[in-house]
Amino acid sequence: MRIVIVGFGTVGQGLAELLIEKRDELEETLGFEPLVVGVCDALKGSCESDDGLDLELILETVQRGESLSDLPGVGCDCDALTMIRQVDADTLVELTYTDIETGEPATSHVKAALRRGRNVVTTNKGPLALHYHELEDLARAEGVQFLFEGTVMSGTPVLNLIGETLAGSQVLEVKGILNGTTNYILTRMGEGLDYETALKQAQELGYAEAVPDADVLGWDALAKVTILANVVFGADLRPADSPCEGITQITPEQITQAAASGQTYKLIGHVWRERDEVRAAVGPQLLEDSHPLAGVSGATNALTITTDTLGDVTIIGPGAGKRETGYSVLIDLLHAWSVQ
Amino acid sequence: MRIVIVGFGTVGQGLAELLIEKRDELEETLGFEPLVVGVCDALKGSCESDDGLDLELILETVQRGESLSDLPGVGCDCDALTMIRQVDADTLVELTYTDIETGEPATSHVKAALRRGRNVVTTNKGPLALHYHELEDLARAEGVQFLFEGTVMSGTPVLNLIGETLAGSQVLEVKGILNGTTNYILTRMGEGLDYETALKQAQELGYAEAVPDADVLGWDALAKVTILANVVFGADLRPADSPCEGITQITPEQITQAAASGQTYKLIGHVWRERDEVRAAVGPQLLEDSHPLAGVSGATNALTITTDTLGDVTIIGPGAGKRETGYSVLIDLLHAWSVQ
Repeated sequence: MRIVIVGFGTVGQGLAELLIEKRDELEETLGFEPLVVGVCDALKGSCESDDGLDLELILETVQRGESLSDLPGVGCDCDALTMIRQVDADTLVELTYTDIETGEPATSHVKAALRRGRNVVTTNKGPLALHYHELEDLARAEGVQFLFEGTVMSGTPVLNLIGETLAGSQVLEVKGILNGTTNYILTRMGEGLDYETALKQAQELGYAEAVPDADVLGWDALAKVTILANVVFGADLRPADSPCEGITQITPEQITQAAASGQTYKLIGHVWRERDEVRAAVGPQLLEDSHPLAGVSGATNALTITTDTLGDVTIIGPGAGKRETGYSVLIDLLHAWSVQ
Repeated sequence: MRIVIVGFGTVGQGLAELLIEKRDELEETLGFEPLVVGVCDALKGSCESDDGLDLELILETVQRGESLSDLPGVGCDCDALTMIRQVDADTLVELTYTDIETGEPATSHVKAALRRGRNVVTTNKGPLALHYHELEDLARAEGVQFLFEGTVMSGTPVLNLIGETLAGSQVLEVKGILNGTTNYILTRMGEGLDYETALKQAQELGYAEAVPDADVLGWDALAKVTILANVVFGADLRPADSPCEGITQITPEQITQAAASGQTYKLIGHVWRERDEVRAAVGPQLLEDSHPLAGVSGATNALTITTDTLGDVTIIGPGAGKRETGYSVLIDLLHAWSVQ
């Protein structure tokens, strides 16, 4: 499998570290030998090699703050679209920054790759929340894989769980904690911190994204429920179609008061069917402490999937993290490779 | 896919009901058109038809207490092994009663089918807990599928979760509530019932198996941890190799006392690595109420899977039930069919 990685921030570096660490294991146990033939990042530069790049060298270069474009023999100046179009690869890993309003530049990258018959693996919520059906149709027409496990609950395999291991079931409703940053902040506020301090800690731990608004105003969770609505329920929703409220209106006093009466605030994403329509929403909910989602603390995510065959199945796992989201890309690469 | 079902108790009937209910859905959405060509039950009789049996008629016959052997045109007197060997089928669904000491008659049925190049789907813990590697090797040699999702947590897809959606991860430890009957009894005892009354309720609800010993003495959970140890960790354990304690020694007083100090008794199955060895154990543990497994109540099961890529991922879902275990067979049939 020949891979181009576009966007080489935290997730890309997490993936590269896993590919190095698990190189022997993946080859020996699964026969999987991925070759990264191109890396392109708007800030960190670009490099390519037909024989496969040295991932250790790339990580060192980026960690030293040097440009990949200056790497002897492999550095280049090509932009993402050029690399996607020209480098001989079968799979694009698209990891640029999520823009949930425009979906760009990721959507253009994904389209360019699919149109050239390349598989696409992405953790970018923009293209999924805005253009899922168009991209899925394109992938199907080209006979390639379009995979995005990491867009919801990072590496915790919720989309694969629903799509593969719950095949033959009808999903009636999904409901859960889909944003680790706000869950961490709410957990810390429950322990007595004020909002600003809790947010700062979340940023220091790398849970909060560069601009916290996407997390604390609920937009990140909204993108995820939109993805779930479209992918799992076959809806055709845009983020703007569903009500969304974040956690910034919740005061420490409200949290203390709730705790005194055995309740906990959680930011809940929810998708359900109402008559013939699929509905989605994000907002804070006050849960009894005995509720299964009330005990999910810190940056952990959880989703309860209500099916016609099994009733409720709940999966709890990490919702963020360099290694965890890097793993979501690895599992998608394995799936794309196994059906080749 | 041409299927023979051996053992037509609760699970077999649950499967038949799902196959009827989902017939159109499975055909339209997945193109899956299974044909049941033989049913054999030591008590309920046997029938076979090369063109496929009428599942509605079979369910009605069994529910009226009449013998399948008397069904006009399709009834027969052949025993399980004869049917497995002689009926033209590609898949055996083995659903006879679990005997965890001998693994029979299920193991002989499974072997006979595998040796004839038939896929095998089973919910029977006996062959898995006692002879997993031998049967897996046989299936691999014959190039057929040997699937058993329902042996652990019924239809909750824990084995598929680990095998498929966590591929490329190393599982370091699994720990959870693997027996719904004892969890139901402990939950009811926590609400004030004595052991005998709670057990009786579990039996009335169909949670407790015919002989409660297998549940309450921990043998059922022991079979499941043995399966997890052998399948997930590659160990070669027999049930007798691991320590096992049930719930019969726990008094209502102990439960009341634990509740007063914010703790809950749970019957915990556990598999872990210790140096180079894989260890397994079953026994009651006193968990803090804040522990994720403490809140798992009633007949629900849960398993926390510790991996090198994601840390802890927990899956919570039904651990028993006619429809739920019937679904475990359906999902395995779908998997076997999709790789054909």
